[in-house]
Amino acid sequence: MHMATYSKGLEGVIAAETKLSFIDGEKGVLEYIGIPIGELASKSTFEETVLFLWDGHLPKAPALREFTTQVRDRYELPPALEAMLTSLPKTAEPMHAVRTLVSALGMFDPKPDAIDHASLRDKALTILAVVPTILAYFHRYRKGMALVRPDKNFGLAENFLYMLNGVRPTPTMARAMDVCLILHADHGFNNSTFSARSIASTESDIYSAITGAIGSLRGPLHGGANEGVMKMLNQIPTVADAEKFIVDKLTKKDKIPGFGHRVYKSYDPRAAHLKSLAEQLARDTGNISLFEKSTAIEGVMNREKAAKGIYPNVDFYSATTYHCIGLPLDMFTPTFVIARAGGWSAHVMEQLANNRLFRPDVDYTGPHAVAYTAIEGR
Amino acid sequence: MHMATYSKGLEGVIAAETKLSFIDGEKGVLEYIGIPIGELASKSTFEETVLFLWDGHLPKAPALREFTTQVRDRYELPPALEAMLTSLPKTAEPMHAVRTLVSALGMFDPKPDAIDHASLRDKALTILAVVPTILAYFHRYRKGMALVRPDKNFGLAENFLYMLNGVRPTPTMARAMDVCLILHADHGFNNSTFSARSIASTESDIYSAITGAIGSLRGPLHGGANEGVMKMLNQIPTVADAEKFIVDKLTKKDKIPGFGHRVYKSYDPRAAHLKSLAEQLARDTGNISLFEKSTAIEGVMNREKAAKGIYPNVDFYSATTYHCIGLPLDMFTPTFVIARAGGWSAHVMEQLANNRLFRPDVDYTGPHAVAYTAIEGR
Repeated sequence: MHMATYSKGLEGVIAAETKLSFIDGEKGVLEYIGIPIGELASKSTFEETVLFLWDGHLPKAPALREFTTQVRDRYELPPALEAMLTSLPKTAEPMHAVRTLVSALGMFDPKPDAIDHASLRDKALTILAVVPTILAYFHRYRKGMALVRPDKNFGLAENFLYMLNGVRPTPTMARAMDVCLILHADHGFNNSTFSARSIASTESDIYSAITGAIGSLRGPLHGGANEGVMKMLNQIPTVADAEKFIVDKLTKKDKIPGFGHRVYKSYDPRAAHLKSLAEQLARDTGNISLFEKSTAIEGVMNREKAAKGIYPNVDFYSATTYHCIGLPLDMFTPTFVIARAGGWSAHVMEQLANNRLFRPDVDYTGPHAVAYTAIEGR
Repeated sequence: MHMATYSKGLEGVIAAETKLSFIDGEKGVLEYIGIPIGELASKSTFEETVLFLWDGHLPKAPALREFTTQVRDRYELPPALEAMLTSLPKTAEPMHAVRTLVSALGMFDPKPDAIDHASLRDKALTILAVVPTILAYFHRYRKGMALVRPDKNFGLAENFLYMLNGVRPTPTMARAMDVCLILHADHGFNNSTFSARSIASTESDIYSAITGAIGSLRGPLHGGANEGVMKMLNQIPTVADAEKFIVDKLTKKDKIPGFGHRVYKSYDPRAAHLKSLAEQLARDTGNISLFEKSTAIEGVMNREKAAKGIYPNVDFYSATTYHCIGLPLDMFTPTFVIARAGGWSAHVMEQLANNRLFRPDVDYTGPHAVAYTAIEGR
């Protein structure tokens, strides 16, 4: 099939088949292998959701037990990787650090290049287990704080907050972190997932694919957007200032961080779930003004922009949620990496189960048959 | 534009516009900004070709002088990056090492995320200058040999061979390396270039884009293929054994490394140029039997497969060339990184000059509206 025209950014172009996640942007539906995201967010755990994505069915109790045990057994980093981590420049942005260290992880694997399903699943499990440790360790290292070793008694979300903050999180916080990870685990052919599948399609290793995906996720047009929401909330002194702040921005035709999505033209189902989570956390942690500023912004945007299909996206209420959980601003996007590592790995496995190298065409718009002019004649 | 059907691997789907390189697979044409590849390979240098790709026109003498001076001034690694390099596992495959160290390079840049054209070009220049040093240093480090510092009196190709082997290459070898880099600098939307543009389209940094591209290039369906050719040549004892070896493989329906290309249905113009280069080098370095094995294989393949449009690709004669230059087998693909760093960077700049986020659709083939079953009920 050759097309004379093309769709910029491949918008509307089908790039592959998937059985992993389904999005209906008009109706505001997101399903993982058929199960609505709200069901999983309220009833599942992150570990179970990831296992569901990798194996294609909800696990029975023994399989889930085996999986969570394996994940907990792999929380710790190889000592040489920890040594590398604690020699990185302390000024580095965490996303640059985690991209580099996941890439480096491939060098500590005796068979990094194996791409049969069992090997991929095993390597994905290691990546899933160590990414929270990499992030928590790097954060404490750069701040000059002693590293807090992982605790195998805790699930992935709780253990991450424990290693990061040095204190065991409250059950509400641990559960909120877990729900955030479920909500962010997979989302169709977002750019990082697509880039991971594209890299994997050369039959390269899973470390290469996930490293590339981390590089993609940090872009401001992708996962980097949630930090913009928090920065905006910090710029608005009180709830009473929200209306004027937003109207001024709209008048100047500035974009409002956390609103609008290339796919959703109605309410993002993840945002709906995060909104109630953010409210509860904000009350529990004395941050209710942050939540109220957010709802005030949503009110203005609803009045001005809902007719155009512009609603809060997943980034909008995750900002308040992450802040209340105690995540520093530049750990928002890295935390997204923890969740999406589950989805990316599922997509790499799906791609390689029925692979075809991604190699699109280009529309060449330059000159032809130009002579090489010697340097004296230019 | 929404399509009900899709083309697997995006084959035949136009993904973007470019003015950088043009391929006519039927006629066996490759041009960089209109200039036939054979012209550049016989008359240009790698540095000039890269500058041509980045700036869109052949440089005048002062601009080329400034560029080559800047590249030479940046051959050395930041000391902390060198320290990281000399603490990597010595067993690591060079491609995993260079992917990790290019990613790490972003942490030594005080403004890694700047994506205005001038910043991108400046960062691309640093990446171009340090990749050969990373590769040569890592190779000598893993072999327990003293590092050989770069020499600013040498151009990029000559300096790479000097740092790698510890002796100044002959003019023929240095020129052969330079020509190989020119031939491999760019090639339309091959997977690594496409992956680099996809990552860059999130407005992420150039280190992320190039790191992802390196991860793609190492795949056996992409840049990893040239190592397969050398392994095959090593399996054939003498020229007289080539015919039987290939016929046996064809009978078993095995693929022959170095033959066939998704795009070219006639003679790859790069292969034509490499063939004469390989012959000259093989004679000069006492490896003529390697070249003769190659032409014997080509003879059999021509008789059996040319009617099906299967010809030698760029990997086929680059194997003999690289071997004669003194590159170890697992440095073949890394050497490809040196060349393609020029093309990838040009594509990242082109993408961001007129950006649109890559976010294709998927064809979801899984179930819908599935209930979450509690674990006891599974």
